[in-house]
Parts: sequence; C-alpha cells; structure tokens
Amino acid sequence: MKNEMKQAALDYHSKPAPGKIAVVPTKPCETQQDLSLAYSPGVAEPVREIAKDPEAAYRYTNKGNLVAVISNGTAILGLGNRGSLASKPVLEGKAVLFKRFANIDVFDIEIDAPDRDSFIDTVAYIAPTFGGINLEDIAAPECFAIEEMLRARLDIPVFHDDQHGTAVIICAGLLNALELQGKKLPEARIVLLGAGAAGLATMQLLIALGAKRERMLLLDSQGVIHPGRPDLNIYKRRYAQVTDKRTLADAMQGADVFIGVSAGNVVSPEMVASMAPRPVVFALANPDPEIRPELANAVRRDLIMATGRSDYPNQVNNVLGFPYIFRGALDVHASSVSRAMLVGAVHALARLAHDPVPAEVLRAYGLERLEFGPEYIIPKPLDPRLIKTIPPAVARAAVDSGVARAGYPAHYPAP
Amino acid sequence: MKNEMKQAALDYHSKPAPGKIAVVPTKPCETQQDLSLAYSPGVAEPVREIAKDPEAAYRYTNKGNLVAVISNGTAILGLGNRGSLASKPVLEGKAVLFKRFANIDVFDIEIDAPDRDSFIDTVAYIAPTFGGINLEDIAAPECFAIEEMLRARLDIPVFHDDQHGTAVIICAGLLNALELQGKKLPEARIVLLGAGAAGLATMQLLIALGAKRERMLLLDSQGVIHPGRPDLNIYKRRYAQVTDKRTLADAMQGADVFIGVSAGNVVSPEMVASMAPRPVVFALANPDPEIRPELANAVRRDLIMATGRSDYPNQVNNVLGFPYIFRGALDVHASSVSRAMLVGAVHALARLAHDPVPAEVLRAYGLERLEFGPEYIIPKPLDPRLIKTIPPAVARAAVDSGVARAGYPAHYPAP
Repeated sequence: MKNEMKQAALDYHSKPAPGKIAVVPTKPCETQQDLSLAYSPGVAEPVREIAKDPEAAYRYTNKGNLVAVISNGTAILGLGNRGSLASKPVLEGKAVLFKRFANIDVFDIEIDAPDRDSFIDTVAYIAPTFGGINLEDIAAPECFAIEEMLRARLDIPVFHDDQHGTAVIICAGLLNALELQGKKLPEARIVLLGAGAAGLATMQLLIALGAKRERMLLLDSQGVIHPGRPDLNIYKRRYAQVTDKRTLADAMQGADVFIGVSAGNVVSPEMVASMAPRPVVFALANPDPEIRPELANAVRRDLIMATGRSDYPNQVNNVLGFPYIFRGALDVHASSVSRAMLVGAVHALARLAHDPVPAEVLRAYGLERLEFGPEYIIPKPLDPRLIKTIPPAVARAAVDSGVARAGYPAHYPAP
Repeated sequence: MKNEMKQAALDYHSKPAPGKIAVVPTKPCETQQDLSLAYSPGVAEPVREIAKDPEAAYRYTNKGNLVAVISNGTAILGLGNRGSLASKPVLEGKAVLFKRFANIDVFDIEIDAPDRDSFIDTVAYIAPTFGGINLEDIAAPECFAIEEMLRARLDIPVFHDDQHGTAVIICAGLLNALELQGKKLPEARIVLLGAGAAGLATMQLLIALGAKRERMLLLDSQGVIHPGRPDLNIYKRRYAQVTDKRTLADAMQGADVFIGVSAGNVVSPEMVASMAPRPVVFALANPDPEIRPELANAVRRDLIMATGRSDYPNQVNNVLGFPYIFRGALDVHASSVSRAMLVGAVHALARLAHDPVPAEVLRAYGLERLEFGPEYIIPKPLDPRLIKTIPPAVARAAVDSGVARAGYPAHYPAP
C-alpha cells in the first residue's frame, strides 16, 4: 500500500472516533415509561417467556439477527498470526459489511485462548447469545477441527467464511467461466494450488457440484499432493491423488482450470501457455495474484481469468457470499449451514451474473456496460439484487435439506 | 404486573422487530472506496499497528468504548436461576441504558458454561474484545469469586453491578439521609438485611466510607450473622459480629439505619417504631419493599425512607451509577475499578442532590419542585447533569489511585 493510502486507512479507523461500529437502541428510551419497558420491571415478562421456551428468544431479543464474528487472530488477512486483538479491525470491518449488505447485527469477538479446545469451549459457551457464528481468520489446519467440533456441538449455523464463503464465490464464478468456455465441470481437469482453508473447502464444494476427484490435482507449497507424501495432515490426505506429476508445472500441462489460493507470482506465463485450450485461471492470492492478468493474457487470448482484486474484472470477493448466506440461514432459523445451502448460493450467484445489469450498478462502478461474458462472470458487490436473490435460494435449500426450524419466510419471493 | 403492562412489555420487545439493540457502522460504507477502507485492503494498516502495540486498539477500534455485559443467568432480577439465554432481555436492556446515559457501546453476552471456572475462563478469553466488563445477575456467593478472579486476571475494569453499582447508590443516598437527620456515618448503628451481592458490597463500601464495623449488624434470612453460626460462607463470615441479638426485631431496636436488600414485607411497623430517633429506612427489595412507605410513615414521622421503586420518592436505581462509572473508567483507560473510584462516585452523586434541580428534570418527571430534603436525597435518573459530574469524579479517582493508563481527559472539567 502506498503511504497515502495507509494514512487514509488509519484516519478512517480513528476519526472522528475510534473504530467502525456502534451499538444503538432500536426502541424508544427517552421517558421514564420507555425505560420501565426497556429495563425493570418490563423486562421480567420476556425473561419468563424465554425461560419457559428458548425459541421465544427469537421473538423478544435480537438473537435471531445477531451473528458473532469470531477470530483467534492466527491467520489475519495475508499477515499471519498477529494475536486475537490485532484481528479487531478486520472483524469490525466484517460487521460493517454484514450490516451494509444484509442488515445483520454483528458482535466481533476476539478470543485469546491458550489452546484449540479452550477456544472451542469459549465459542460454545457464549453461543446462546447469537443466532449464528462466523469464524474468521483462523489458521489451517486447526480451523477444520474447530469448525467441525462446533458444528457438532451447536444448534445454530457455524460457518468459517475463509473456507466456505470463499469456496461459494469461486465455484459460482467457475461454473460461469466453464459455461463460457463450452466446458462441463465433471469433465474439467482442475488444478488447485493452496491446501489451506479456502483450498480444501473449494475442493469439497467442487466435488459436491459434480467435479470428478480423479480429474483434480491439489497442490501445496511442496507440490502435488499424492499418497506418497509423508508430510500430509489428514485434511490434505483426503485429496491425495495417485499421479506421476510432482510440480506445479507438471500439473498445469493440459489443465482446463487453475485455481490459486496461495501466494503471489508463483505461476509463470509458460505454465498458462501449457494449459488446455480455452482455460480458466483464477489467480486469487492477495494483493499479488499467482499471475498478473497482463502476463497471462499476453501468452494466450482464449483465457477467462479472475482475481481477488477490485481493479481487474471478475473479482472473487467474499462479500458476495457471507451476508446473504447468513441472511437466508437466520431467516429460517437454520440449525446449521448445510452443503445444500452452499450449493444453493453457488447457483443463485452464477445465475444472477447472466441477468442484465441494472443502471445503478453501472453507475456505482462508473461503467457504461457490463454483460455476461469473459469479463463479467461474477456479480458485483454493490449489486442490490444480491439481497433479493441469494437469501431466498439459501433459505429454500435450508428448508429442503431439513435444517430449518422455521418455514420459508412469507416475505420472500415464492420459490 | 398487570396483564396490560405485561402485554405492553412483550410488544415493546417484539415490535416492529425483535429485541432492543442493533449494531451499526459509524463510518461511510456506501462506495467501493469506502469499503476498501473499512475492509480489505485498508484494514491491514490498523492490524499492523495493533500487532505492534496493543494500546493502538484504543485508537483504531471501538474497544475503548465497548463494554461486555455478561451473565450466566443464575440470578435474573428477582426471578432466580432461569438459565443464561433468559437473561438476554435484561442484558439488552442494560445495553440500552449504557448507550442512552453514557454513550457506551455494549455487547450483551449470555454464557452457558458447565461450572464456575469455565465461566471465568470464558470471560477472560473473550476479554481482548472489550474495554470493560460488567457482570450481571450472577448468583451469590459465586459472584464474589468470579469477580475477584477476573479482576486478578484482566487489565480492564471488571465490575459486578449488582454488587458495587447498587452499593454506590445506597451509600450516596445514605450519606445524604444521615446529613438531613443530623447524624454521622461513623456513629450510626446500621442494620443491613440481605447478605447477597448487594448486601455484602454495601457493607464493604460503607466501611470504606467510615462506617464502624462494630456498630453494624448484617443479617440474612436466618437472622443476625454472628461467629456462632455454623452455616456461614467465607463472604458472610467476614462480617460476623459478636452480639446477643439474633432476630431482625432484636437488631432493629435502637438502630439508626436499616438497609434492606432482601425480600418484600419482612419488616413490621413495630420494628420501625423501635428504631432510634430520626432513623433512615432503605427498603430496597423489588417489586415489594421490606416495608411499604405508607406503613413505615404511619408509625413515625421523623423517618427518611428510600425504596427501589420509581413510584415513591428516593428511588435507589442502579442506572445512576454504572453508565457513569464505566464512562469515567473507559475515558482514562482504567485497568480496574478501584475502591477510590466507587467512593468518588458516591460523593459526586451525594453532592449533586444538593444542587438546584434544572427545569428539564422537573418537566421529565411532571414535578413542580424538587429540593434537597427527606423526599429528595438521590438524583433522578433522567438528570442530564449526571453525565457531566459523575464520570469526571470517577476518572479523577482513577488517576489518583494509580489505575489509569491515560491521563485525566482534556474535555473533562478541571478537577
């Protein structure tokens, strides 16, 4: 970042007052009468109702619209383990996005626990407070066990956005890219570089969407993940592939799809040149992609490319997912985020990119036109149709997959 | 409560949307540029600053204005142990009051932990999130150990309002009542009924203010607390008094002060009649006081009385304390709430009741006049002078008692 941008960021966070969120009353609280309803003695009645029936908390408190965004600070952005307190600007930022895009209230919770099990216990013990839990910036592979155990213990959605949020957007973009390239997911040869939170969740979701395991190669910084590797954790081992290929260059030869969630500048133009005809390259490392679009486009014109950056076309941006996935989940009191809900979100996002782009979206981005095609495979974050289309798809999938405790909301469009 | 009032309370909590608080962005978040400052990439810079220096969290996040109001639900209002979730309306109500009176942001946190130590660990592990911690509705005697251990572990204010908040208001009112009765605290014979959170904290604070232990009798539901009782926990034992008196009636004979934080209708008119001349009776049980003012006033005219109710004069109401004590503590980055800060709050509250009451306070309560005297010994909750006078007194005491990490704020009045 340039110094000017750094200062603007620090100013934004500190002026006129520190931080980015506030907690405000939503009911009148001026007069003595107001206060006797908001607190004592009025508060006794909802207390009694909730003590009788826990579901009443969804009627008389903000629980049903409240998500905890929780981190231990072990994998903050691209900055690594900086301690839980340092994750606070990120989590507050996430709170801003949840509210801005889906009207969801967020408490950011920074947890400094001595070990993994204490962290899990802490989240479980504070869970009654919330309607859902968004885990954030937790290092792999701990993040997998943490999410798994919390999902098993809790009856509210637990969602590690760095895994599933990222996977949803990648998959939505990829479905559209393959469609444009005239290819089908089950036949596509896919190379995925990066076996952390995002990489492994993307493998999982791609397979759920129909990708064939035997056509996929997963790589980490040590190369292709194959059964002969002695250094694999159980999460990577799940995707080990019997193959002669060992290096990224080996893997890229003839591949239809490259997905990078790894590090900057690790893909060479030669590797892209060696891919199959009409390839798809998602170079999602931030701030520097695995290969810059200029370099990739220089070696071949039949490419569809996406990055994690807002200054290139086709930005894979998590904000397209988490606000709407939680909105749908909360609106049906989902007890978890099921695979079907993620798939529902993928298809709804992919479909939306096909529709004509409203004028206000063009204005927001200073664009004259934007049409489904190689440079527009993923909806834009400021698109107001997202809130209308993604949550209903997620809610419908929640109801259909049996994790909804409430019915499909009456204020949603008919399915 | 009447049915009509119950329904009004349920409506207030459920309409137009469930609950009483929301979390909102405080910085612009409309355009792509706004969002790049609020989240990625802008957020990286404050993350780096906080990773270098934890105090930077007070500059770049809301930590310094954020208080956790935390309960395990074991002593909700007068309703007993109803589970942590049922405390949510109370804690949200507290959030409303913190914001309304002191512009402090509150996350309500309901903790369902299997035992005391897990509860303590949970609070400690989430503490980086907050600038202070307000414990609420936790049953005695566990509340004492919980607060003590958290105070020892954490470097932010930990404050159990049911103990110290209540004690502060009681003591402020009592100082004024004694002044009006021409008595002095060190000479006063004090009977305190109720050896839970509020009772024991009040004993402690009264002694800090100069009351003499040998002139005080503490009672619980089993009678006078004396060294011969085999059933005392360590917290009650601390105040055991060698005496022949055994019953409440024994204790009340010749007493200057009665303070009840116990249960309704346990004090008879005869007991009040047996007190010393010009007595003070604080009958603070809610909703039914230990003795109704009508009954007490019927047996003697030289009485000054306070209750916990807003429909009698001299309401002892915690909202006079906690918002301002935390405001002062947060504004100097206090590492704890010291005894000196509580004493500072007591004296500032007591002093304020002596000053002429502004017209807007009279209007708020529909009163024509209100003057320091037997029917006005404690400021009114809607008095806008509270926020101007109590936090500076608390902050000054924090600085003087060595628990402030920042200086006395420049925007506060000169001490």
